[in-house]
Amino acid sequence: MNRHVTFFYAPQTRASGTLALLEALQADYTIHTLDLKAGTQREPAYLAINPMGKVPAIRHGNAVVTEQVAVMLYLADLYADRGLAPALDDALRGPYLRWMAFYGSCFEPAVMDRSMKRDAGDPTSSGYGGYDNVMDTLAAQLATGPWLLGERFTAADVLWGTALKWTMQFGLVPDRPVFRDYVDRVAAVPVIQRAAELDTSYASPQAA
Amino acid sequence: MNRHVTFFYAPQTRASGTLALLEALQADYTIHTLDLKAGTQREPAYLAINPMGKVPAIRHGNAVVTEQVAVMLYLADLYADRGLAPALDDALRGPYLRWMAFYGSCFEPAVMDRSMKRDAGDPTSSGYGGYDNVMDTLAAQLATGPWLLGERFTAADVLWGTALKWTMQFGLVPDRPVFRDYVDRVAAVPVIQRAAELDTSYASPQAA
Ligand SMILES: N[C@@H](CCC(=O)N[C@@H](CS)C(=O)NCC(=O)O)C(=O)O
Ligand SMILES: N[C@@H](CCC(=O)N[C@@H](CS)C(=O)NCC(=O)O)C(=O)O
Repeated sequence: MNRHVTFFYAPQTRASGTLALLEALQADYTIHTLDLKAGTQREPAYLAINPMGKVPAIRHGNAVVTEQVAVMLYLADLYADRGLAPALDDALRGPYLRWMAFYGSCFEPAVMDRSMKRDAGDPTSSGYGGYDNVMDTLAAQLATGPWLLGERFTAADVLWGTALKWTMQFGLVPDRPVFRDYVDRVAAVPVIQRAAELDTSYASPQAA
Repeated sequence: MNRHVTFFYAPQTRASGTLALLEALQADYTIHTLDLKAGTQREPAYLAINPMGKVPAIRHGNAVVTEQVAVMLYLADLYADRGLAPALDDALRGPYLRWMAFYGSCFEPAVMDRSMKRDAGDPTSSGYGGYDNVMDTLAAQLATGPWLLGERFTAADVLWGTALKWTMQFGLVPDRPVFRDYVDRVAAVPVIQRAAELDTSYASPQAA
């Protein structure tokens, strides 16, 4: 199967984790950079790929995948031989999906509300219950370590390591040792470090 | 492999879609009902399963899976022979993941904000951009029909069919023919209809 993918990207955004994953998977990919300030993500050519006008997105053959969580799940399975996704019959598959979905359904909404200084509303109806609940649940899981799923480094660490890094920088996640240590641990993985440098270089004017 | 799962459930909640999926998969499962009004989901026994105190959750062997999106992805793959999940090498796998993730990362936060009469904030930073954008994107996808991914009925239809039903009832989704027709189409699938009756029967006092 041809595993080449086109990657729709903008530097230092929610697409940065996908860049790191593509690097970690040693994937065969072509980058297509959107200029969010100039608004190219809202032009018809890109809206035909993702009508939400959002990055990341990928195209593999005729299939388009959007949404960070879906993009990462898809890529890690496409390059299953690289070992970053527990296989369908692996005991870690369930926990892997759990924490990938938790990112989109709980962490992001909690962090977005925090950034706007508003709360979850009624905790029983809210899909994420409450900000503290989300952070405590995540902290307890990370405390088992060294990686999110224990001994095995997976695509979930690429997602969470990059996401916690920027949300901590913005003060949207509590400054606790368990989060700091985890962010440092992921950032120190050589390929993640190289991807972060690549992401920075794409953001610099010379690269544009 | 033993495919028996324990299903942590409460009637007429976000766990109702999982009930429908278990039925549609003809899965081997045992129901464990939580009484949300009495607060059994906040007791230590359940918090040991899901520290968020939320349903749905499932246990399969030693693995616990929480989050509706993850639970459904997991179950549909576990019972892959039932044909409700496009296989890893199927051209529909990417779109399938995309629309499953879109539910948790875009639709739910948009609908929750709408229920609290507040907006997305800055559309570029918001993970879902804006309410109208989410509804228009979903409507355009459903317009291709008859199912979310076209000709093939998948677990994504179980999720979206049940979710759109309750969000339309609560007036959280615009009352457009494309949504109404889709909800009716999913609800008319015999096994979905039976699952809805089961869900209602579990909610009635006699069943408690
Ligand atoms: N729910 C999406 C959110 C992606 C997202 O919000 N990306 C931002 C960059 S961080 C974006 O593309 N913004 C451009 C815009 O909305 O104009 C996901 O998880 O992938
Ligand atoms: N993010 C979760 C949300 C689940 C959820 O909010 N479930 C509600 C019922 S609709 C619940 O269990 N509420 C009980 C509580 O919070 O006390 C998911 O997608 O599964």
